[in-house]
Amino acid sequence: MNNKIAILGTGAWGTALSCCLSNNGYEVEMWGINPSEIKDLNSGYNRKFFGNKKLFAKVKANIDLQEVIENAKYILLAIPSTFIIEVLDKVKPFMNNKNKYIIINVAKGLDPITNNVWSKSIYKNLKKYNIDLATLIGPSFAIDVFEKKPTVVNVVSKKLDVAKDVAQLFNSDFFKAVPCKDEIGSQILASLKNLLAIAIGISEENHNSINTISALLTQGVNEMQLIAKHMGAKDKTILQFCGIGDIFLTCTSNKSRNFTFGKQIFKNGLDKVLKENKATVEGYKVYPIVKKIINQKKLDVPVFKLIIKVLDKKLEPSKFVDTALDDLMWTEINNPKDSQKNK
Amino acid sequence: MNNKIAILGTGAWGTALSCCLSNNGYEVEMWGINPSEIKDLNSGYNRKFFGNKKLFAKVKANIDLQEVIENAKYILLAIPSTFIIEVLDKVKPFMNNKNKYIIINVAKGLDPITNNVWSKSIYKNLKKYNIDLATLIGPSFAIDVFEKKPTVVNVVSKKLDVAKDVAQLFNSDFFKAVPCKDEIGSQILASLKNLLAIAIGISEENHNSINTISALLTQGVNEMQLIAKHMGAKDKTILQFCGIGDIFLTCTSNKSRNFTFGKQIFKNGLDKVLKENKATVEGYKVYPIVKKIINQKKLDVPVFKLIIKVLDKKLEPSKFVDTALDDLMWTEINNPKDSQKNK
Repeated sequence: MNNKIAILGTGAWGTALSCCLSNNGYEVEMWGINPSEIKDLNSGYNRKFFGNKKLFAKVKANIDLQEVIENAKYILLAIPSTFIIEVLDKVKPFMNNKNKYIIINVAKGLDPITNNVWSKSIYKNLKKYNIDLATLIGPSFAIDVFEKKPTVVNVVSKKLDVAKDVAQLFNSDFFKAVPCKDEIGSQILASLKNLLAIAIGISEENHNSINTISALLTQGVNEMQLIAKHMGAKDKTILQFCGIGDIFLTCTSNKSRNFTFGKQIFKNGLDKVLKENKATVEGYKVYPIVKKIINQKKLDVPVFKLIIKVLDKKLEPSKFVDTALDDLMWTEINNPKDSQKNK
Repeated sequence: MNNKIAILGTGAWGTALSCCLSNNGYEVEMWGINPSEIKDLNSGYNRKFFGNKKLFAKVKANIDLQEVIENAKYILLAIPSTFIIEVLDKVKPFMNNKNKYIIINVAKGLDPITNNVWSKSIYKNLKKYNIDLATLIGPSFAIDVFEKKPTVVNVVSKKLDVAKDVAQLFNSDFFKAVPCKDEIGSQILASLKNLLAIAIGISEENHNSINTISALLTQGVNEMQLIAKHMGAKDKTILQFCGIGDIFLTCTSNKSRNFTFGKQIFKNGLDKVLKENKATVEGYKVYPIVKKIINQKKLDVPVFKLIIKVLDKKLEPSKFVDTALDDLMWTEINNPKDSQKNK
């Protein structure tokens, strides 16, 4: 047993992280299901995501899952959240009951079956194995990491020593993983921010004003804080890299699919965008779960309720911002808790 | 005595706010020192700031300060902070000792004489008069308000009823002022954000990566929170419109002088930019005061210390981001308090 790191998935993020780890001197082996992608990676490229630019570190890729898992101490899940459980079920036969594994998950979103964070589902799925779990969350476009742009994320685990151990795998002069213990809060915020980014995208297209975006963002962040708190988040996680850092990135960049999805549905209407859009829009995928949580817990979150109404096709995207402002006019102070008390 | 509002200053922000108030049906009279600007305003324009676009509401402007102050209940200070005390000294002879005045300050920054917030200096200067004070702070470019883009700011006063009273003057279907009681915290944050915006501007020009900006912004916000707390701010003010809302606006927009100042000093060096720059850059003006505060209180704020080093010409702007990242690599967690404890 050595420090080998198995990376499951050959997407942009998995590839960028593999390069970071390999660059730091760790033995890295990626697993994927597409032979030509595997071949591409082994020749030093991921042309599907990064074109003809060479990977900044050598990575090994393999189509044989057993070989990849063999001797691995760390298993990094860089697969779309929809397939996490399916892939874990494939991985388990190759895991050794006696070994300790550290699972590093980088998939975000909420599990539509449990309506809760993925870490809970992963623990449950692997409960017969000796594992620790860490989740990587923070403001990080894969392409920027691929280009070695300075990047800081959180590495979240309920055990601080696990977070520190994983952080040390990644830390380099351009990439830093900062330990954080709020496993639930960080994942909830990471999901909610995508929904807020859709709202901000609508606003950008509607009013093209940074005043308006800043107002919605502030209100939205306070509502995220309220929702996350009701799910068990700690108060100060909102100020972490996985909190405002990631919100800032997701809500301002045209590279964010959620933000551009918001812009598109304002321009072309939800139906047309849904028909044409093939890429996963996390905010759209997660909204029914957020809707359930808000309704169950009867939370006073006007902006989130309205963006859900838009996605439910009960409010025109063109009416979203002005309705949100009208609604906000009723609240005395933006702090949702206080305004709830006052009602 | 009626509800007349005297607006001192004929700049972009004073003009935009005058239009908001006049549009809400209040009697508004602006005071300025330039006869041609006064004439322009009375004819429905402020060509200096808004070109040939007509003001969206009728405003009255007057060069005679006594006439403007006469019968006013509200006095809105829309003058550069450097001249606040000078102007107040001119205003006092026309104020009536028996009347109650509500002063609304919109100037930001810190008083270089007291090294503290302007509200304290205003209370002190007007202590013989019967006044209440409110400060308007939040993410709001004047041009966007002038164009009636939806905008939300905080109206800050230690007395909630004063904040509510002033809020109701401004509230309309496109402009909302949300009461906030943290008079000190809101003003400190409003000053610190300008210094952070310089740092973000440098980063933008250096690495052109939203990953990097988001990382610096997150660390910067946590440091702002620490500095503000030591000055008496409340914890949750950072999540207000005057907190992250204003940080978001100031740190992302090319309309922000501080952000573009940061970009320029990376490109051309501090000396050259200072020689050519005529407009006030709040972040540069306030940095010696912030430096004093950080040193006096021995605060562990690596990003703020480094940006101060740049403005002190002790660190090349081109080395700022990488040095900041190196420094951050030392800290276990980004929470400055915790890392202080660990040292």
